[in-house]
Amino acid sequence: MINTDICIIGAGPVGLFAVFETGLLKMRCHLIDALPQIGGQLSEIYPHKPIYDIPGYPTIKAQELIDNQMEQIAPFHPTFTLGERVEKLEKLEDGSFILTSNEGTVIACKVVVIAGGLGSFEPRKPAVIGLEDFEGKGVSYMIKNPEAYRDQRVVLAGGGDSALDWTIFLADIAKEVTLIHRSDSFRGAPDSAEKVFNLASQGKIRLLLQCNLNSVHGNGNINKVGVLDKSKIETFIEADSLIPLFGLSPKLGPIADWGLSIDKSAIEVDTFDFSTNVEGIFAIGDINTYPGKLKLILCGYHEAALMAQSAFKYVFPDQKLSFKYTTVNGINEF
Amino acid sequence: MINTDICIIGAGPVGLFAVFETGLLKMRCHLIDALPQIGGQLSEIYPHKPIYDIPGYPTIKAQELIDNQMEQIAPFHPTFTLGERVEKLEKLEDGSFILTSNEGTVIACKVVVIAGGLGSFEPRKPAVIGLEDFEGKGVSYMIKNPEAYRDQRVVLAGGGDSALDWTIFLADIAKEVTLIHRSDSFRGAPDSAEKVFNLASQGKIRLLLQCNLNSVHGNGNINKVGVLDKSKIETFIEADSLIPLFGLSPKLGPIADWGLSIDKSAIEVDTFDFSTNVEGIFAIGDINTYPGKLKLILCGYHEAALMAQSAFKYVFPDQKLSFKYTTVNGINEF
Ligand SMILES: Cc1cc2nc3c(=O)[nH]c(=O)nc-3n(C[C@H](O)[C@H](O)[C@H](O)COP(=O)(O)OP(=O)(O)OC[C@H]3O[C@@H](n4cnc5c(N)ncnc54)[C@H](O)[C@@H]3O)c2cc1C
Ligand SMILES: Cc1cc2nc3c(=O)[nH]c(=O)nc-3n(C[C@H](O)[C@H](O)[C@H](O)COP(=O)(O)OP(=O)(O)OC[C@H]3O[C@@H](n4cnc5c(N)ncnc54)[C@H](O)[C@@H]3O)c2cc1C
Repeated sequence: MINTDICIIGAGPVGLFAVFETGLLKMRCHLIDALPQIGGQLSEIYPHKPIYDIPGYPTIKAQELIDNQMEQIAPFHPTFTLGERVEKLEKLEDGSFILTSNEGTVIACKVVVIAGGLGSFEPRKPAVIGLEDFEGKGVSYMIKNPEAYRDQRVVLAGGGDSALDWTIFLADIAKEVTLIHRSDSFRGAPDSAEKVFNLASQGKIRLLLQCNLNSVHGNGNINKVGVLDKSKIETFIEADSLIPLFGLSPKLGPIADWGLSIDKSAIEVDTFDFSTNVEGIFAIGDINTYPGKLKLILCGYHEAALMAQSAFKYVFPDQKLSFKYTTVNGINEF
Repeated sequence: MINTDICIIGAGPVGLFAVFETGLLKMRCHLIDALPQIGGQLSEIYPHKPIYDIPGYPTIKAQELIDNQMEQIAPFHPTFTLGERVEKLEKLEDGSFILTSNEGTVIACKVVVIAGGLGSFEPRKPAVIGLEDFEGKGVSYMIKNPEAYRDQRVVLAGGGDSALDWTIFLADIAKEVTLIHRSDSFRGAPDSAEKVFNLASQGKIRLLLQCNLNSVHGNGNINKVGVLDKSKIETFIEADSLIPLFGLSPKLGPIADWGLSIDKSAIEVDTFDFSTNVEGIFAIGDINTYPGKLKLILCGYHEAALMAQSAFKYVFPDQKLSFKYTTVNGINEF
């Protein structure tokens, strides 16, 4: 069991800044995110795009903002559980909380901060015969630990950046890599596409264009994948793993069942401190709603700052909070 | 008369970010500030100090933040009136506003955004016989245009950075420079102090330490200044200008008389859009108050963003606002 002052659900820009604001007040944070990487929408959807409305940055690439925020919170040593979705939230009699993830990780904390954005990013699953039967038995929709594929026969499917990037990456690690894509051109970055075409012409990967994933077979674990070509003829490829990469889409998911007051998939909060209707649970960033709400990164930062003031009362009920400028007091690492 | 969509009172970090947020929505801004330079508290009080709680900046010097913000708003070409205090605010029948400064500058606008911080920075005036009689007749408390001192006999008084920096600067421009300071060491930066001591030993300036400014004399305009040494003997120095630099302190001043609802020197606003009780007037940054308010730069940024949405309705009453991410739409210069 992980024990912490504050559990932050969501490691997007707003969850990360909450680590900073609560860290200034000496509270410890653990973050959990359904994605295998830190950064929320910014890292998942538009890491290389420039953002223009981060105050003080005429322009900054999304991933660079996340990297800078990681540097900014480093003095407070946050801990992370990645690639797991919080499923269950339980409030104990003493007012503290127990959270449980889909993989059984248990986190005990005094305050819950939901910075869940548009919801946990869930894979878009293609309609493929037998696919769900092999989830966890060779089928996975995101790659948490690429080393797990060493010396395996891996089949990937998809035409975006993730499919291209992982094909290139796994070509060096796996025994055999096949990429299946329904079109003959790729949506992903042109230079990644070029690399994939080169790997294929050098025989380092197998590239099946104008093909569709059709079925998954195995005996306990997956052992082959059925692919339809454009004349609808099915051929079979031996495989130890199948990774369909058709993008992720955010789903509010389990958060809807925690007794929180919800309006149009967003959690209603009080602008005094961005508290929800449940004592000790706050909601900040894209996931909350209040009169005037704008789903902007900079607004989430403000919400994190005000939240921290109230969170302090749950973590240190006997202490008095005094407000001090960072310029005057600096950052005290812990 | 200056005509603009939005007049922003205060060119601190929050007023500057309001230019950005309203600029995204195609509104034009004019800013007016009592200080001769842009940047509010950051440039006036702590330009060289690092700030640690600007999101995405593990550390940034206050003046650097202001410089970056100026670059960020450059595409929207804001205009500035510096070194003037807004004295009068008048609301016309058509709902628009006329603002008038202490120097008679008149600004017509559709929306007023008060980003006045702790109030307009006003000089601390030393107790000196005849001082106020010569204001505008040789006595001034800040330097707006150093060229005005070319070939003049200038007397400065004070021991902080402004006194040191201006003494060094004017030594090259004025005919004669005298610096009066009550102690024999300076509060300002040690290297500036050293430069001043060097200029004095080279005979390029006159340095009167352990002395106090006592009286101002003239005939219409100032012509001499009386100085007491530590044995209280008064000597007189011929002078065309006297510049007492004893720091600036913020005063709410005229803003208190504009019919706004005020609580403890701060303007009460609605967190929906940071509007005041007067239609068409908004208040953002340190100058406003609401439940949960924190006087932080990052909070002012959020306030500016929400304000801009409502300001739009006054500037473009017939248009529909549609919300778009900068990452998707970019910045459209005008
Ligand atoms: C293409 C695009 C362009 C954009 N451009 C801009 C822009 O220019 N400026 C701007 O300000 N904003 C922009 N945005 C919006 C911005 O990305 C969001 O406002 C921001 O990401 C919100 O941050 P957040 O931390 O609240 O949530 P997110 O970034 O959405 O992160 C939330 C995280 O919580 C996780 N999560 C949710 N539920 C659970 C759960 N139950 N268990 C575990 N993890 C969970 C999710 O997996 C996710 O990683 C843009 C968005 C997109 C898609
Ligand atoms: C030493 C110190 C350290 C700080 N450290 C931090 C920190 O680490 N983090 C943080 O977030 N904040 C910090 N702050 C606070 C921060 O500086 C303020 O929150 C910020 O300056 C507010 O910005 P603003 O734009 O609202 O107002 P200001 O910066 O105060 O600017 C307001 C401007 O309005 C002008 N004005 C007012 N009335 C009039 C009028 N009638 N006519 C013309 N002009 C007028 C004033 O002259 C002034 O220039 C610190 C402050 C100080 C003093």
